Amino acid sequence: MIKSLGAKTLIYPAPVLVVGTYDKAGKPNVMTASWGGICCSQPPCVAVSLRKVTYSHASILEREAFTISIPSEKHVKEVDYFGLVSGRTMDKFAATKLTPVKSKLVDAPYVKEFPLVLECKLVHVAELGLHTQFVGEVIDAKADESIIGDGGAIDIKRLQPMLFTPDTQDYYGVGKYVGKVFSAGKGV
Amino acid sequence: MIKSLGAKTLIYPAPVLVVGTYDKAGKPNVMTASWGGICCSQPPCVAVSLRKVTYSHASILEREAFTISIPSEKHVKEVDYFGLVSGRTMDKFAATKLTPVKSKLVDAPYVKEFPLVLECKLVHVAELGLHTQFVGEVIDAKADESIIGDGGAIDIKRLQPMLFTPDTQDYYGVGKYVGKVFSAGKGV
Repeated sequence: MIKSLGAKTLIYPAPVLVVGTYDKAGKPNVMTASWGGICCSQPPCVAVSLRKVTYSHASILEREAFTISIPSEKHVKEVDYFGLVSGRTMDKFAATKLTPVKSKLVDAPYVKEFPLVLECKLVHVAELGLHTQFVGEVIDAKADESIIGDGGAIDIKRLQPMLFTPDTQDYYGVGKYVGKVFSAGKGV
Repeated sequence: MIKSLGAKTLIYPAPVLVVGTYDKAGKPNVMTASWGGICCSQPPCVAVSLRKVTYSHASILEREAFTISIPSEKHVKEVDYFGLVSGRTMDKFAATKLTPVKSKLVDAPYVKEFPLVLECKLVHVAELGLHTQFVGEVIDAKADESIIGDGGAIDIKRLQPMLFTPDTQDYYGVGKYVGKVFSAGKGV
């Protein structure tokens, strides 16, 4: 039996992204965001949407750059904290004792302790309503060697990224292997 | 030790979305896409990116509408098949014996057997390169009662959505509960 839930953005799963920026004074800041994802393969682009009131919003427009770090679930406390307070009044790196690293490729910092980071140059801005969507071209992706599997690719079970559930607002981990893309459907 | 992987779109996890459209002749079609996500809360909007060569690309522009169904992992075979063949030459509903349902709100069909669907009206198009990003305003979300938990919200463990891993191209399921959003970080 199908039930109408109203006009809600119920995409499952949403990712848990940590957006890194420098403010006007050069202070590194981070915020957590789940409204985002991959949006183009060539050039490689990712999208993240932020509300205009966030401190990071102005920083992205000013520096035309941001990073997206993918944290693992062992940092859930720090990641959630990054979404609870504003960089306008708090130094989130100092409060969590995590380490900002200056990207050599774009004008933005990333979190040293997080295992995967995308360094992005702003290429497109869309004013959609409450949120502004920022599209960044990925200039480089960097990963800690500990999350790279035997074949040289990222192993999601080592990365242990979190999922965000839009309706209940929880964090979940990654579960079991289900199948191979462009292969599981060959028998249909 | 951090390692450069080059300019790659490594966001984890990516969702597994099934995009529903009508072609010029009114034939219902579906394709699988993982480049997408939520992009605005008010108005509620979601984004999905498709390559120009796909059959669905022209259908979205023509009908100015699409649906996004979230399949559960039990339909991995059908979902993968939807990404293997083109609606230009195949009737994917007939081949999988799944059922197209005409949305009453937007000019697009959805998959009856999938537990969650967003009915979307096209509001923004961005040409990013290989992919075109389509932003749709969610007019309604509909869910099967079987995935709704005791509190009236969607229960991700009942929905059992799949995750896509960009680097290795696998499907994974949802794992264990990690923490509460806007709560886990309060102790930092």
